Amino acid sequence: MTNLAQLNAQDLKVFHQQVRERYEAFKKRGLKLDLTRGKPASKQLDLSNALLTLPGAQDFTAADKTDTRNYGGLQGLAELRALLAPVFDLPPENLIIGDNSSLALMHDTFVYALLKGTCDSTQPWSKEKRIAFLCPVPGYDRHFAICEEFGIEMIAVPMNDEGPDMHVVEKLVAQDAAIKGMWCIPKYNNPTGTVYSTKVVERLAAMKTATPDFRLFWDNAYAVHHLTTEHIEIANIVEACARHGHANRAFVYGSTSKVTLPGAGVALFGGSKDNVAWYLKRMSKRTISGDKINQLRHVRYLRDQGGLMALMDQHRAVIAPKFAKVIEVFTQHLGNTGVASWTDPKGGYFISLDVLDGCAKEVVRLAKEAGVELTPAGSTYPYMKDPQDRNLRIAPTFPVLADVGPAAEGVALAVLVATTESLLKQRR
Amino acid sequence: MTNLAQLNAQDLKVFHQQVRERYEAFKKRGLKLDLTRGKPASKQLDLSNALLTLPGAQDFTAADKTDTRNYGGLQGLAELRALLAPVFDLPPENLIIGDNSSLALMHDTFVYALLKGTCDSTQPWSKEKRIAFLCPVPGYDRHFAICEEFGIEMIAVPMNDEGPDMHVVEKLVAQDAAIKGMWCIPKYNNPTGTVYSTKVVERLAAMKTATPDFRLFWDNAYAVHHLTTEHIEIANIVEACARHGHANRAFVYGSTSKVTLPGAGVALFGGSKDNVAWYLKRMSKRTISGDKINQLRHVRYLRDQGGLMALMDQHRAVIAPKFAKVIEVFTQHLGNTGVASWTDPKGGYFISLDVLDGCAKEVVRLAKEAGVELTPAGSTYPYMKDPQDRNLRIAPTFPVLADVGPAAEGVALAVLVATTESLLKQRR
Repeated sequence: MTNLAQLNAQDLKVFHQQVRERYEAFKKRGLKLDLTRGKPASKQLDLSNALLTLPGAQDFTAADKTDTRNYGGLQGLAELRALLAPVFDLPPENLIIGDNSSLALMHDTFVYALLKGTCDSTQPWSKEKRIAFLCPVPGYDRHFAICEEFGIEMIAVPMNDEGPDMHVVEKLVAQDAAIKGMWCIPKYNNPTGTVYSTKVVERLAAMKTATPDFRLFWDNAYAVHHLTTEHIEIANIVEACARHGHANRAFVYGSTSKVTLPGAGVALFGGSKDNVAWYLKRMSKRTISGDKINQLRHVRYLRDQGGLMALMDQHRAVIAPKFAKVIEVFTQHLGNTGVASWTDPKGGYFISLDVLDGCAKEVVRLAKEAGVELTPAGSTYPYMKDPQDRNLRIAPTFPVLADVGPAAEGVALAVLVATTESLLKQRR
Repeated sequence: MTNLAQLNAQDLKVFHQQVRERYEAFKKRGLKLDLTRGKPASKQLDLSNALLTLPGAQDFTAADKTDTRNYGGLQGLAELRALLAPVFDLPPENLIIGDNSSLALMHDTFVYALLKGTCDSTQPWSKEKRIAFLCPVPGYDRHFAICEEFGIEMIAVPMNDEGPDMHVVEKLVAQDAAIKGMWCIPKYNNPTGTVYSTKVVERLAAMKTATPDFRLFWDNAYAVHHLTTEHIEIANIVEACARHGHANRAFVYGSTSKVTLPGAGVALFGGSKDNVAWYLKRMSKRTISGDKINQLRHVRYLRDQGGLMALMDQHRAVIAPKFAKVIEVFTQHLGNTGVASWTDPKGGYFISLDVLDGCAKEVVRLAKEAGVELTPAGSTYPYMKDPQDRNLRIAPTFPVLADVGPAAEGVALAVLVATTESLLKQRR
């Protein structure tokens, strides 16, 4: 492929004509494909069908003799906390099992901080004149939606190869006491796949913040969601924060939504002793206990670390080829065109695709017209506004493998049409 | 038995001596019994053991072909909403299925109202200088704990035989715009067993309130929890509110916690079209979807209205004899003594016991010393303060039937000791 920006006007017109024709031909195929959300495929869900009959007819007694069918046990079953503890680098007593959604736990953390303040706050966050959050971009739309819901100002921070740009982060949090926290997806970031380096983790733990109740919302959503045999690990944030004298800085979140069954999994909150005590106190007003049967069901199914890792290998076998297919098709159609670049993540659920500035919305529109649904352009930015209108989030897990190639081709053709048209306009 | 207040000093001293001896003898039995919380007994949990293997190995498809294993379907499975709709007098589209806890849905409603305002609010409740809630007493401690957590002033309202004292309620809500709502357990109230009459429901729906966003928190926790063959029904609050021009006044809550398994059940929120839309909008920031597998599990197990009612009959067979035993023992030991009165509820989970003013705390202390744990005195009042120190909540469901008699006897003896000692003090 040629770098399109370097074509002369005539060659660019010819090229545009050709990709238009290819795009129209693709459209005629009348496909209906969906790359919008990070949903597991049916084949992945099948892996956990054992959950549909667990824990079993007479199996309801926890290791400590608790009858899991009845009320009680706010923090969650000890054996499930023990099973998940190593994944999140925390002792079991520093974990709380929630319902099915880690997003809900993040949302509730905001609620508790807003209405009651954290354990280090002098007043509820809602009493502050202004609250702001740092948002590494591109990032996760549902994180940003929580901030927007509660009127929390979002400040975008560039994402580098090793995590958020720490020069920017350090400067902002040091000078602005309204910045109460920061969103982090430290491993296989949604959508860039970025893994926070140990250096970045250390700097996040060590940095001086203008407010004493600053919090890292550490959404370790893809802790075990590797796409290669290289199981990348990140530094222990809670330990690092403690070592730097900021013991309560990190709120840790995770879930089994993409391990077992989305919606029917278990989520967790973790952190320092004080953070856990604070969260449990707030949570005790909200509910008597979580679904301990589902917790037991997960213990019976996953059994141990080995069981969990074997399951994740099976997930990888299903989805890694889909990622490879997208990369292959993008390389084939968009390689060296200079109008698009994309990530090749080692884990997580997304490929981040950057196109020529000002073209992302048009790509989504064209792809949709050609039968390929994409997440709306802007979704990966606060307030749904990508200032350069260039980033797209590609979610290849849900379609069957046979559909992924055509879907990626539809996207690639939309990219070529949109960007060549943009280049042609610039020449006028 | 004699009315103790009418005994002369000498006879009272003799009586006191006798009950002290009976109390000490009881204490020597070294029992360890618990009447604290409204927990189902193991025998009741056994009724729903089928849930432990449901929905079944290959059963994950909802009626509308939804794969319940994956994300999506925020409002909850249509077939479960249809199954529960008649119980709560609402069309299925006016119900939202939550996780396992209706308390959590009530808590979250407060959160949404505080941080965002209801669909009729001009500003978030947290922006108001003062917010107050009406609390019929005696009432449910966990309701009051939510108000206390969020700094909402609680105003106690007397509970009459047909529901809250409507003269008091109407007067208060008409004059005080800070009163944003009211707690209601309209059927088999916790702990009094009171059933709101149609007249009371009508007046609650019709009354003029000083604030336009006043809300009834209608916790229909015991909708199908009858203790007799008489299945008492209450008037339809949402319909009544609409008829009186206050369509959005009622937030309805319920759960299957005491139908299937506490903790592993499903909860629901219901109300007007606008309230449901409002709640769903808020909830959509918190989670992607509930546990649809557990929803399907409940549909497969309960099947239909008939299945639900048959299950509730089985519950009644287990717990009605326990209530009868408490009433029998109380009547035997406390009947006509004039120092205690108690309810004989037709449903729900509690017996409300009133003792001589100023004696409730001492009864709890004495009962505990004799091996019978009771809910702390004051629990049924806002701020845990019973101004007359007289009300106790008796929860007879959890112990096995054979233990209920002795437990009730321990309470009765504690009542006799505490009240005779109080009467003796008064004579001095």
